[in-house]
Amino acid sequence: MNNLFAERMSKIPRSFVREILKVTEDPKIISFAGGLPHPESFPYKEIKSAASKVLSENSQEALQYSTTEGYKPLREYIAKRYLLKGLKVDPDEILITNGSQQGLDLVGKIYLDKGDTVLVERPTYLAAIQAFGLYEPVFKSLPLLDDGIDTDALDETLTSQKIKLFYAIPNFQNPTGITYSRQKRQKIADILKNHETILIEDNPYGEIRFMGEDLPPIKSFLEKSVLLGSFSKIVSPGMRLGWVVAGKEVMEKLVTAKQASDLHSNYLSQRIVHQYLRDYEVETQLEKIRKMYKRQRDLMIAMIGKYFPHDVEYTQPEGGMFLWVTLPDGLSSMELFNRALKEKVAFVPGEAFYTDNPQKNTLRLNFSNSDDEKITEGVRRLGTAIKNLMITEKFNES
Amino acid sequence: MNNLFAERMSKIPRSFVREILKVTEDPKIISFAGGLPHPESFPYKEIKSAASKVLSENSQEALQYSTTEGYKPLREYIAKRYLLKGLKVDPDEILITNGSQQGLDLVGKIYLDKGDTVLVERPTYLAAIQAFGLYEPVFKSLPLLDDGIDTDALDETLTSQKIKLFYAIPNFQNPTGITYSRQKRQKIADILKNHETILIEDNPYGEIRFMGEDLPPIKSFLEKSVLLGSFSKIVSPGMRLGWVVAGKEVMEKLVTAKQASDLHSNYLSQRIVHQYLRDYEVETQLEKIRKMYKRQRDLMIAMIGKYFPHDVEYTQPEGGMFLWVTLPDGLSSMELFNRALKEKVAFVPGEAFYTDNPQKNTLRLNFSNSDDEKITEGVRRLGTAIKNLMITEKFNES
Repeated sequence: MNNLFAERMSKIPRSFVREILKVTEDPKIISFAGGLPHPESFPYKEIKSAASKVLSENSQEALQYSTTEGYKPLREYIAKRYLLKGLKVDPDEILITNGSQQGLDLVGKIYLDKGDTVLVERPTYLAAIQAFGLYEPVFKSLPLLDDGIDTDALDETLTSQKIKLFYAIPNFQNPTGITYSRQKRQKIADILKNHETILIEDNPYGEIRFMGEDLPPIKSFLEKSVLLGSFSKIVSPGMRLGWVVAGKEVMEKLVTAKQASDLHSNYLSQRIVHQYLRDYEVETQLEKIRKMYKRQRDLMIAMIGKYFPHDVEYTQPEGGMFLWVTLPDGLSSMELFNRALKEKVAFVPGEAFYTDNPQKNTLRLNFSNSDDEKITEGVRRLGTAIKNLMITEKFNES
Repeated sequence: MNNLFAERMSKIPRSFVREILKVTEDPKIISFAGGLPHPESFPYKEIKSAASKVLSENSQEALQYSTTEGYKPLREYIAKRYLLKGLKVDPDEILITNGSQQGLDLVGKIYLDKGDTVLVERPTYLAAIQAFGLYEPVFKSLPLLDDGIDTDALDETLTSQKIKLFYAIPNFQNPTGITYSRQKRQKIADILKNHETILIEDNPYGEIRFMGEDLPPIKSFLEKSVLLGSFSKIVSPGMRLGWVVAGKEVMEKLVTAKQASDLHSNYLSQRIVHQYLRDYEVETQLEKIRKMYKRQRDLMIAMIGKYFPHDVEYTQPEGGMFLWVTLPDGLSSMELFNRALKEKVAFVPGEAFYTDNPQKNTLRLNFSNSDDEKITEGVRRLGTAIKNLMITEKFNES
């Protein structure tokens, strides 16, 4: 029977993170593995009120089929918010998707022929590898430095070979938490202007900057790029609402692909989120999330300082939901994962985030969906597991 | 720039129906072109109450990320309802999708390599052609007779060549309104048991049978087939909730593909629809829809009898939302479409529903999203347009 399935399916294992999340369902385990927003960050009273309003005033419309592009006033809202940040976008250059994950799928669908090359950061977002992977490209990865991708390597790669897409997450990258500097953003735009390669700029966490200066999207310097956004980290991921920003010609293809994929995104939820954004001040909501996540991030870093051996390195993100840990050379985070489970603490081993030659001594920690007690105790347990691993390794060496 | 897009995009024009729907936005036009449920059929008060309940009692959960498979109690409800109809399905064999359109996309994604053959009814559902089309198969079509597909032709085709998928809509087919007889269902299952071909059985309208005897899905006789269902015609299409039923091995692939495509379906809506189905009797809702659509279908058929020339043929569907008209040989429904627009009435020319050699004298009429006045006046106008077309054609011939 197996040969009945399309070739593309043989290339995609079920998500590693998904399997890990199953292991960590045990309530005794403190998990830093997931990538969930904190449920207390959801504006649930406001959403309830918005839902009630939509279903009282516009129910026949909100429950009916709608346009593939998405609810126009919601697209206008998104365009206006970009303008506040210095990016001029027409509402017709915005397509509402089922979370930005669908944006990735649609991008793969319209751009990728089998064998095309997709350039990604090293490491990169696992679910992007999966979404693009189903269109059977070849992946190539470039080193991610503290201030963004290695632009010399980018220039060299684009010059020496044909690259269809370059996928990047410039703000509080998943999995590393790294943010691209303003200089790097400008430099990337300059490089890409000389090549046919399309930049796919993913920005699910941009609004959750809790320190440092807000930086413009690379699309501000490079009109031809495609930009992805999401309400998942701001309002609610359960409603699956994201968007893609692209120029007219690309948008036509995206709309055709979206129509064939599911006709349109959930219209009731589009109306509810729009009603919420109209009736409430989103900045209040954002401030609440930023404050909450910054507190948790600060505590996690403090506890790492306290409980981890001093030769363990880690990023200090200015926003988002993750930080990235690098163990001393030679240690394996998969091995650590098994030990950590015994200590009742979990994380995602870094291997999951590489398209090739994984750096085996890395791991991702989530700080958004946690609390003080869990962070303090979980990092302590993880520190114990790391120390035990180091002792065993030293013992094995000698 | 065009050569940057994937080859698959060059094969899919934007939906013809979509373009037609734009033309018919003029409120003076009576349109039988769309495929929308009647907005008065939506249980909006009940949905409002269900939404309020979910957002009061389970808001943190309902707004959070969820599983790819979908809300388990909703899948259990669907399984129970199948059991009432004699089909035994495990809830774990059900995947919740963004409308059944996404089911089609996922089926294409997991099964179709470029060049695989997909067998369809002649004519068939336009959006299925689009969904599968993006995976670059070859289409082959078989005649649709009054009681279902031509099974002799099916047997011969499956024996003489390799067919990956056979896509069929056995209940109140879109666009024709035709229903497969019990004998044909059994016969199709018997034929398919001898071949590797997978049946994709699409059943969006099955619950809207307003006359005749309920018939079992072909899957009842053929376990290996894949069955698609939808809440769009029962509760609300705007919430984009459908499902796929498939055995364990296929389900694993579907879940992998769904996860890469959009992680999961809108969870808030899944909870709302489940709450609605728990708190209210769905049969009451179904009876309301069936009564409404039967009345409209009866009136449309009566008006066709009154206003159309006697040599125009049409189907008499026992359920669903569409009927299918065949003009006398030699007449073109595209030509009729232009004339009908002048009379301020619209429909979908049949050409849109063929994968090859369209039968140009056919057209689809929707009766669900209409009312007595529109049906009476619209069919009268369409009758006038047909008569005028026939006179011109005769004049041209002589």
